[in-house]
Amino acid sequence: MFAKRIRRLKSSLVREILEVAQNSDIISFAGGLPAQEVMPDFNSAGIPTDLKQYGTSEGEHPLRVEVAKYVTNLGRACSPEQVLITSGSQQGIDLVSKLFVDEGTRIILEAPTYLAAIQVFDLFGADFCEVQLDSEGLNLSRLMECLEGNRFSFCYLIPTFQNPSGRCYSASRRKEVAELLESYGVTLIEDDPYRELKYSKGANQPIVSNFRNNSWVYLGSFSKTGIPGLRIGYLVASPDLYAPLYKLKQATDLHTNRFGQHWASNYLGSPEFSTKINQLQQYYREKRDVMESALTKYLGDVAFWQKPEGGLFFWVQLNQQIDMRNLLKRSLDSGVAFMPGEPFYAIPVEKSGAMRLNFSHSTPRQILKGVEELSKVIKDVL
Amino acid sequence: MFAKRIRRLKSSLVREILEVAQNSDIISFAGGLPAQEVMPDFNSAGIPTDLKQYGTSEGEHPLRVEVAKYVTNLGRACSPEQVLITSGSQQGIDLVSKLFVDEGTRIILEAPTYLAAIQVFDLFGADFCEVQLDSEGLNLSRLMECLEGNRFSFCYLIPTFQNPSGRCYSASRRKEVAELLESYGVTLIEDDPYRELKYSKGANQPIVSNFRNNSWVYLGSFSKTGIPGLRIGYLVASPDLYAPLYKLKQATDLHTNRFGQHWASNYLGSPEFSTKINQLQQYYREKRDVMESALTKYLGDVAFWQKPEGGLFFWVQLNQQIDMRNLLKRSLDSGVAFMPGEPFYAIPVEKSGAMRLNFSHSTPRQILKGVEELSKVIKDVL
Repeated sequence: MFAKRIRRLKSSLVREILEVAQNSDIISFAGGLPAQEVMPDFNSAGIPTDLKQYGTSEGEHPLRVEVAKYVTNLGRACSPEQVLITSGSQQGIDLVSKLFVDEGTRIILEAPTYLAAIQVFDLFGADFCEVQLDSEGLNLSRLMECLEGNRFSFCYLIPTFQNPSGRCYSASRRKEVAELLESYGVTLIEDDPYRELKYSKGANQPIVSNFRNNSWVYLGSFSKTGIPGLRIGYLVASPDLYAPLYKLKQATDLHTNRFGQHWASNYLGSPEFSTKINQLQQYYREKRDVMESALTKYLGDVAFWQKPEGGLFFWVQLNQQIDMRNLLKRSLDSGVAFMPGEPFYAIPVEKSGAMRLNFSHSTPRQILKGVEELSKVIKDVL
Repeated sequence: MFAKRIRRLKSSLVREILEVAQNSDIISFAGGLPAQEVMPDFNSAGIPTDLKQYGTSEGEHPLRVEVAKYVTNLGRACSPEQVLITSGSQQGIDLVSKLFVDEGTRIILEAPTYLAAIQVFDLFGADFCEVQLDSEGLNLSRLMECLEGNRFSFCYLIPTFQNPSGRCYSASRRKEVAELLESYGVTLIEDDPYRELKYSKGANQPIVSNFRNNSWVYLGSFSKTGIPGLRIGYLVASPDLYAPLYKLKQATDLHTNRFGQHWASNYLGSPEFSTKINQLQQYYREKRDVMESALTKYLGDVAFWQKPEGGLFFWVQLNQQIDMRNLLKRSLDSGVAFMPGEPFYAIPVEKSGAMRLNFSHSTPRQILKGVEELSKVIKDVL
């Protein structure tokens, strides 16, 4: 006799494909894996032995101080007391769901949006209102339409180098979205893991920087800029949301692993952080440019996309609306994995004609070869 | 507009008291902290660099193999494919709650039982049936009474050196409990973090060893025998429960930190493990004996208790049923912290007259001094 939510429990397609892709010679554009060869080092020398003991649920004080400094520098003034260290930023999504989502709770999402966020919100029983993206970010008239129709518990956005679309909201769109949400009193959950992976001009201030009195949660991660295997993320919350989120964290896993937190606070607080970020930007920019060329060469006549100014993904839209999950099966037979667009929509679509291609994990040679093979499969199907 | 469950969200009294106790010269019998000075070392030398990358949700294969071997040796035959690595065994409780508990879901618990388990089950909306403990373990006639009255989603037990009571079920009681649960088709969640901390005869086989076809989850931890700050626990589940638990883990935090898992698999698979366990047993046995003497000397005339054969706690029952939360305030003024008995009952009690005293974290001198001070406060109140 399982809980009702288990009927809605889906496996993550991305992780199942990853397992196939990991156990073979497949060129994988499917996952969101950062490149291991440019990750910083982990060294346990100098970790205070008292970190072996149980810790506090809110996280290590030095890391909370560093995160508060960092987020304040981004434009959202905050104190260490607003910072909660999480076991990866995925846990932030779990905690937010526990805080807000009952069966039938209405929330606003981007279309498309992060697959594993849809999965969790859906598990807890959320009802979705989807807002499409235009070239500046969240489409305002559609957002307004949503807001006027219903009461929403929160709006979940990834405004900076979005997963999967790669879009980055303009500064003015960020302000407009903030104003609208604040005027309707809708809490914003801003998920911002890709901010530092920028390949041209800098990213704009977080949307939450614009709020005067609105409630908000800002989710951050060390998995794209540091060591994902350590599972260190954080959330910063407006004071009204902090206390219940802290208690939920306590009930969920007592606290996040302390050795990882120690590493993260040293890393974020050291000059190594900006050096490493520069290196990552250069490394990924090159790969992005290789994929851009390959796409233009092999798929320019049958697909369109926006060159991402940051993040880890191209979002490629074919000229025809076909079911990309079927195309994936054929592509895997040809040795190339990608993420079909369909599961990135909270409200099911049958034929997205879209795919997400990751460029951070493959070598330039694999990118060229993989896109070429993929184009053959696509042109064969179209 | 929070989720309905937030009305039921309580803070953990134990952790709040811990915070008071940590920031002062208070002698604390309140927490469940293992002794840091006998924890094994952590060394990051030799950690494969590919563990920096994202990992799989089920956990590292070598650790799953070691855990399966270990649990099979305890008497519960299982395969690595039944092992799910968790971020501390607290996360196992969260996953089980997600799997089973809706508002109004009925579950069976010991009275008293682990406070943070009550907290999580309650958060998800469980209705409780409490079964008292007698000298052999779970009281069978009361268990039968529960089982005959209603359908239950699961029964949650800590049969080995229970937190908070210190009780260890006899071998025959384990069999009887297993038979009853199996005959009613009630899933058992067996939480077993204290098994290795035994100070006289060995602990009996896990209850789940007795099942033929019943569903079960066995929760284990490296926090009492290893390094709690790393947050490494595990669950082993009957095959019917594994798949949904795996998917829930994936949605909760993607996976557990890999450096900690690497440490845990080396530790569990090495001779260091049994050497360390022997050392811990000797170290804690001495402290237990000091507390036993102190209790006899200072509280023998106003309280009773059973000397625990393992684990980390004495459960001390006063001759009078008073509200121990009030007594705690006075005790803190005298420089001693303990855990009042009341929050260990899922169904609220007003005056438990009971307290949980931890003996692992204090020095023998602190134990003597603390129990003496505590006895003065108690005798003053009685």
